Amino acid sequence: MKIEQFYLYEDDPKVTLTAYILDDSPELTNGRKRPAVLVCPGGAYMFTSDREAEPAAIRFASMGYHAFVLRYSVYSNGGVKFPVPGESPAYKKSVYPGPMLEIGMAMLLIRAHAEAWKVDMDRIILNGGSAGANNCAEFAVHWNDPELSGAIGARPEDIRPAAAVLGYGVYDYVLMQKTLEKIGDADRIEMNRGFDLAAFGEPDPSEEILRKASPIHYISKDTPPMFLWATREDATVPMNQTLAMALALEEAGVPCETHIFENGQHGLSTADQAAAQAKEQIRPDVAVWVKLAETWLHKRFSLPLPDVCPDWKAELELNS
Amino acid sequence: MKIEQFYLYEDDPKVTLTAYILDDSPELTNGRKRPAVLVCPGGAYMFTSDREAEPAAIRFASMGYHAFVLRYSVYSNGGVKFPVPGESPAYKKSVYPGPMLEIGMAMLLIRAHAEAWKVDMDRIILNGGSAGANNCAEFAVHWNDPELSGAIGARPEDIRPAAAVLGYGVYDYVLMQKTLEKIGDADRIEMNRGFDLAAFGEPDPSEEILRKASPIHYISKDTPPMFLWATREDATVPMNQTLAMALALEEAGVPCETHIFENGQHGLSTADQAAAQAKEQIRPDVAVWVKLAETWLHKRFSLPLPDVCPDWKAELELNS
Repeated sequence: MKIEQFYLYEDDPKVTLTAYILDDSPELTNGRKRPAVLVCPGGAYMFTSDREAEPAAIRFASMGYHAFVLRYSVYSNGGVKFPVPGESPAYKKSVYPGPMLEIGMAMLLIRAHAEAWKVDMDRIILNGGSAGANNCAEFAVHWNDPELSGAIGARPEDIRPAAAVLGYGVYDYVLMQKTLEKIGDADRIEMNRGFDLAAFGEPDPSEEILRKASPIHYISKDTPPMFLWATREDATVPMNQTLAMALALEEAGVPCETHIFENGQHGLSTADQAAAQAKEQIRPDVAVWVKLAETWLHKRFSLPLPDVCPDWKAELELNS
Repeated sequence: MKIEQFYLYEDDPKVTLTAYILDDSPELTNGRKRPAVLVCPGGAYMFTSDREAEPAAIRFASMGYHAFVLRYSVYSNGGVKFPVPGESPAYKKSVYPGPMLEIGMAMLLIRAHAEAWKVDMDRIILNGGSAGANNCAEFAVHWNDPELSGAIGARPEDIRPAAAVLGYGVYDYVLMQKTLEKIGDADRIEMNRGFDLAAFGEPDPSEEILRKASPIHYISKDTPPMFLWATREDATVPMNQTLAMALALEEAGVPCETHIFENGQHGLSTADQAAAQAKEQIRPDVAVWVKLAETWLHKRFSLPLPDVCPDWKAELELNS
């Protein structure tokens, strides 16, 4: 494996793409290209969580896919850790559509190295949890929007994602607002105003702004297949987000596999010790999603391998 | 993740240790040390298989363990791809106990970097398949033999392995010989003479030599717990090797978990696309061993995590 880190902007060391490129070998892919997973870690557009970054990338790499981690622009990059809604300033780069455009920039960066890295650009899978899932879903519905491709100087066909594997995401900000009002927890509503400052540049965005940043409204026949999962106990992003998105995809005829686990808190990432800050985040009942996603991915993106091996003497030739 | 490659000898570029060191983070291990898995790929002491190297290392890394791949000395390093028994010369470095000593050298190398890499030296797990399993098992029974530690200038306590996860290995060369004679396949017997030239420096080693290199005879109370697996259809290393080893461990009171899958050929490694040269090596019925091994490892070597997370505001502090 080769690890390389790139900066998306010359003047911003916090926005990076880290490549995890698997070794080629005559015994393995033998010069053929591999699909790749582009991981966008969540963190409420406040930060990008380490728990949803390398552990996810390594797990996808263990499936035989190249992996990338995109640290897109987030509010804390501006120097303020957590905003006080109504007092703290906005941070322009974390405001929609900034982080979404950075996925496109990452796609171009990967494409520029695709031959050297042996990346199959027709098989790039987006992955993210929470805000990362939101960002991936936004890109998945807007990748061929001239506004997006124009903003980063790309041809849409050069940044097309092939699928998305998303956990506990927000896909409909208007529904999110309504659900929070219904729950009526003042602390949670106030916390959400902080998130809105990070994502929209203001703590009380209009419904028009919320709608524009909600991928659920932009699903089309060009939206790639999705694998969605969430937990019913999630107290940060209600799981009705995932059900609503799955329903909207189904209505648009976009293939979607959906798993809502009964138990488990928000932000479990791979739900095993590799992604845990504490033992309470190790949930074998939820970690099942990784295996389910692996099966779902292999259906579409299995490595281009021959059916049978050369005989062992030929294999020995390869290895000597 | 950080990847680093080291040479065990100044004058031999083919014997290497590659380190796969997971990133530390306040959100993850937070400065605490991780266990590590030292992978010894198989290849009949003729070569070291890429299929049993990085794919295994990445899979163990995905479990939250640091990983290492040791490319120990093998016959083809001497310049001859496959020996003609009785004609080809021996290659001194691949002859027992050479490759076993190199595991000890790798342990010392890891120890020298343990603080920087945050490796828990009390929790080093050996992993290997086929000849790699043989090499690991030899080291697992001899690590505190003064002959071994003396040869590499180590204190036994500095190279102690904590466990071994071994697939389709040879543990009793005398039994191997007898089984091959019983099967009576002339091609297979001749092929095995080639393997013996690689492992013992001669195509027709004496029973004394075979016994000395058979870990099954040296199991003691200091032998670490083992996880063994094999397949009944293995036409290269008969699975009675694994059963015999499991029985010997049990008789010595050494904990051992054993899985013999009904189907599957020799050398499946992780038995998924990440380790496959061809589709015939993708065997979900056998790949189950990886998950079983993960559970077995976590019982002993779970990461040292606190029970509960700090609240999310504290988490944000960590990440900003």
